[in-house]
Amino acid sequence: MSPMMSTDQHLTEVLDSFSDSANPRLIDVLGSLVKHLHSFVIETGLTREEWMAGIQFLTAVGHMSDDNRQEFILLSDTLGVSMLVEMVNQCASDGATEPTVFGPFYVPGAPSREMGDSVAPEGSKGKKLTMSGVVRSSNGEPLRDAVLEVWQVTPDGLYAVQDPSIDPTSYRGTYRTGDDGTYEIVTTTPVDYQIPTDGPVGKMLQATGRPSWRPAHIHFMVSHPAHKTVITHVFDANSPYLGSDAVFGVRDSLIVDMSSGQASFDFVLDRDS
Amino acid sequence: MSPMMSTDQHLTEVLDSFSDSANPRLIDVLGSLVKHLHSFVIETGLTREEWMAGIQFLTAVGHMSDDNRQEFILLSDTLGVSMLVEMVNQCASDGATEPTVFGPFYVPGAPSREMGDSVAPEGSKGKKLTMSGVVRSSNGEPLRDAVLEVWQVTPDGLYAVQDPSIDPTSYRGTYRTGDDGTYEIVTTTPVDYQIPTDGPVGKMLQATGRPSWRPAHIHFMVSHPAHKTVITHVFDANSPYLGSDAVFGVRDSLIVDMSSGQASFDFVLDRDS
Repeated sequence: MSPMMSTDQHLTEVLDSFSDSANPRLIDVLGSLVKHLHSFVIETGLTREEWMAGIQFLTAVGHMSDDNRQEFILLSDTLGVSMLVEMVNQCASDGATEPTVFGPFYVPGAPSREMGDSVAPEGSKGKKLTMSGVVRSSNGEPLRDAVLEVWQVTPDGLYAVQDPSIDPTSYRGTYRTGDDGTYEIVTTTPVDYQIPTDGPVGKMLQATGRPSWRPAHIHFMVSHPAHKTVITHVFDANSPYLGSDAVFGVRDSLIVDMSSGQASFDFVLDRDS
Repeated sequence: MSPMMSTDQHLTEVLDSFSDSANPRLIDVLGSLVKHLHSFVIETGLTREEWMAGIQFLTAVGHMSDDNRQEFILLSDTLGVSMLVEMVNQCASDGATEPTVFGPFYVPGAPSREMGDSVAPEGSKGKKLTMSGVVRSSNGEPLRDAVLEVWQVTPDGLYAVQDPSIDPTSYRGTYRTGDDGTYEIVTTTPVDYQIPTDGPVGKMLQATGRPSWRPAHIHFMVSHPAHKTVITHVFDANSPYLGSDAVFGVRDSLIVDMSSGQASFDFVLDRDS
């Protein structure tokens, strides 16, 4: 009788099966995925029942997902994978503005706003916030005509795209810096909000005793020719959830005090390499 | 400005978030999963577009799955994970019968058959096969009244549960060994068959140039009091797909020549530890 196949031999057989792909990148990505999946099963001594629970969880995540709700992105967010993908892809230098998660609520083509215009509609019940600062290159030079795309939640904790009763152009806007690199946006102070908890990801958070809140923040995408675009948030220092962001997007360098209704934040962009 | 958060610090933050779970096993399993997912992203330098392609692939796998079709199990099978879970859970000793995948087509309560009875209905167009042998304990002792549950495809390459036109009790049966530990089953020679290729897993196999065939085999689940149950297949040595099983279930020790219509295979069960 031949000796039992070892788990190493089994892994080699699986990896070899991909070697006929015409796409070398696919071989690399699937190879790394398979190696890590197999190590996970061996390290944990995963039982059949646990494996089946995993199959059922992933199936429920798939069934929860449609054109309006993407539970797999939420799963990636809550396992810190989405944030890690940004870290790996944006790879800013020390001194440049630290990136964070993009999130699912960006809509291209936010309306142009003049410096000092508000993204909030007239009569918004939120507390007015003016945020200003300078956009600089990593060599210190202020950047004129840098583009700042801004989006955030309404005072009710929803993005305009989530609430059909809200003007879809509100709570977002495209600003430009002046000759001296300065910008000034006007909005309402952002509020903390919960990620959706009515699906399998919500059950996972509950089972692990994790909160489902994101600390109050404003999204920024800042770009300028010959520089790397930065996708980030600016967080309010007064949020109680800075230490427990459900999607692990908080960075100390991105926190400012918004309590006075005036806040200041400078952006620093790396040059294109 | 604080230094950028490193990917190691980010991982620690994610792992720490699970530490409030009341379930220590969940902390271990999710911890290992998160570590491996993060390493996968870093090692491959996964791009945003690749990450999104992965999200879309998993969503499609979820949408393909229902009560009758489980595309996540198929994905696990074709990445060698299902086989690995069996290796980790069955962990037979050297000399004992090597386990292989359970598969999705087992139905409990197969009809009892007398030694020498056929699982195939009268008039089956398949080629008759008699398989016999001894069930032994790992100390060599023949095991009387060992139970052999058997299931396999019809000559058309479908399991009875897949084809409503087939008697659901056919092509499966429960046999017992005699006083001397011998068994004898009668069936039709199993045929090669394809796993379902009309879903996202089929696209993955195509993109990687992998065949979608399983080599001809008969499923066995063999049990006896005070012994570990073994779940395995016996493969036909004449299949052209022994070297490219879509689910990586083939083991050299499980291959016998079925071409003469008579085949012999002995099962060896480990004692309960």
